[in-house]
Order: sequence, then structure tokens, then C-alpha cells
Amino acid sequence: MIRYPKGMGPSVQTKKPKKIKGLQENSYKNRGMSLENEINLTNDYYLTRQRALIYKRPTPINVVKVDYAKGAVITKAYFEKQSTTDYNGVYRGRYIDFEAKSTLNKKSLPVANISSHQLIHLQEVIRHGGIAFFMINFQIHDEVWFVKAESILEAINERKVKSLSYQWIESHGYKIPISLQPRLDYLPIIDQLFF
Amino acid sequence: MIRYPKGMGPSVQTKKPKKIKGLQENSYKNRGMSLENEINLTNDYYLTRQRALIYKRPTPINVVKVDYAKGAVITKAYFEKQSTTDYNGVYRGRYIDFEAKSTLNKKSLPVANISSHQLIHLQEVIRHGGIAFFMINFQIHDEVWFVKAESILEAINERKVKSLSYQWIESHGYKIPISLQPRLDYLPIIDQLFF
Repeated sequence: MIRYPKGMGPSVQTKKPKKIKGLQENSYKNRGMSLENEINLTNDYYLTRQRALIYKRPTPINVVKVDYAKGAVITKAYFEKQSTTDYNGVYRGRYIDFEAKSTLNKKSLPVANISSHQLIHLQEVIRHGGIAFFMINFQIHDEVWFVKAESILEAINERKVKSLSYQWIESHGYKIPISLQPRLDYLPIIDQLFF
Repeated sequence: MIRYPKGMGPSVQTKKPKKIKGLQENSYKNRGMSLENEINLTNDYYLTRQRALIYKRPTPINVVKVDYAKGAVITKAYFEKQSTTDYNGVYRGRYIDFEAKSTLNKKSLPVANISSHQLIHLQEVIRHGGIAFFMINFQIHDEVWFVKAESILEAINERKVKSLSYQWIESHGYKIPISLQPRLDYLPIIDQLFF
């Protein structure tokens, strides 16, 4: 009989893993942040490998009061409401601009999740020849989809849909391969669609 | 004799205009902001005329504490030190990225005014085929110069200069025409240099 170090053998685990109360909710609750993290890690990977230069836009904040005596601590400020999209940058000389959305819904992404400012902004990006798209994360399916902003603008502006169904995204989008390095390898989709 | 309404005649003003204490200092002090305003107005003009989509990047702020009871007031936050450049966007499909610098010096812009992060960032923009430049405002001369980031990177990285002289900027840069609409018409310079 092979004696494995404790906990490393092929034996069937009989003890049920302890359930940590609230973990399920938490893991879902934090996935919005998690998608952001995955994208940031992907962009860091692209940056260090000199593949592309794509950044998260800082959240626009309206600073009202700063305490310089304490070393420039902001003591009063507000989040600005009219923000544009989450990410922009440059890839192969072209301007890249995209918005990331995450949903707990199984079957659709409600259009209410997308602000009109974002739609107007992406429309302008397209007008000026930039590459505009959405990354849509269906948390339940553990999938992230690349959907061209053109398709989403057409659905919302022309067909006035109130939600983007999973089926529609499946047929109009491109599933982003998930790996460790990079987490979400979306540049090959851009190569294929825009170059 | 023609009787003009009070204060509207062609008579020579004999009373010296009242000097407002500190006005000179203030007008200089605020010119840094003023360059930013002029650029923002220019970009608004380009946006509404559908010429280009170029935005001021929000200042990156690290939010520490938010009071949600008072309607999401940020009560503690810090300015992040590693910011990149001031402006980016898209023009004729190309990625645009630039930094604006203003100086009270008559004869040069000290290199100390440009952070190493900004230089590294602009180097990456060039690597990925973006259009990278500086706008340099000599307040005393009331001039704004367009200088390609390539030229400035070469001067700083290769020739190790400690300041960019006015003469050097004059011979390597392009004076941006100043008008009311747009304030600083820099797109024709991009057309000429990059297309």
C-alpha cells in the first residue's frame, strides 16, 4: 500500500467540506469587481508583453475639499454621474473602447444596466473609426462574451429591445476564451473582426 | 458739440484705472488651469462638430471612505501618484494621447515638469502605433506649441537634456493657431504630421 502524505492521497474524501455561511452570496456579490479584476490582469499581461496598451479609466470624481495640512487628503468629494465607458487604449494603432457588464441573470442582460451616456459615447467612438464593444459576463454560466457595440446599438436604438437575451448574445457575440494567462484573451477576436 | 451718454464719449480718460492688488499674480497662477480649460473647450468644439472624440482623463483618485447615509459623499480619498497623461481619444480611427504642460519660464520647459510615468506611457503609445505629443504653453509668450512625443523622448532619453529650450521647441515643434472657435486648433497639425 502506498502511503501518501496526509491529505494528498487518492482516497475519497468522506468528510463534507465545512460550509461557510454567506460564502455563496459573497462570491456572487464580488463577481462584478472580479470581472474588473480579470480584465485588469488581462490588460497588465498585454502591456508587459507589449501586445496592447489598454487601461481602466479612472472613475470621474468631483473633488470639493482637500486638506493640505494633512498631506493632500481629500475630505469631501462626489462621484460624477456622467461617466463614459470603463476601458480605452490602443491596439495596432487603432483606438479601442469598451464597457464591461456583469449580470446574475441567466437568460438576459437588462438594457437598464447600460447608461445612455455610454451608448452615445460608443456611437461617437464608431463614428471616428474606433473599435467599440462590450464584454458581457454571465456569472451563472461563467462566461464572458465579446459583443460589437454596433450590434448592441442596433438592438437598442432600432429594435428598442429592453433586454439582450442570452440567445441573442450567443448568436451575435464571440465567447472570450478563459485561461490563466491571459485571463480573458480578447485581442484575437479584435484581430478577426477589425483587421 | 455732441453730447455723448456718460462714459461713452471719445474723451480721453484722465482717471487712472484702479489697480486691483494681486491681480497680476492671480492671472498667472490660474493660467495652468486656463490651458486645461482652453483644451477642454477645443475638444468640446471638435466633439460637437464631429471632428474628433478626445477627452480629459479623470484624475485617478483612491477612494478610502464613502458616507452612503449622506448620499455617497466621499469623506476620505487620496490622489494617486502614478497618473499617466492628461488627454486621450480617437481621431480618424487613430489613437491620440497627449500631455499638456504650462510654464512661466521664458526660455525653457524644465524636464522635471514631466514625470517618468508620462514618458514611459507615451513611449508605449508610440510602440502600439498611437499618436503621442505634448502641448507646451509658454505663458509669457502667450503661445502653445505642439511637439511630437518622439522628439521629446529623444531629447530626454538620448541627449539627457535637463530642460527643453524655447529655441529647441521652436525648431522641433509647431505653433498651434489660437482663435475663438476652436481655441487651439491642433487637429490640422496631426493631419499634416501623421496622415
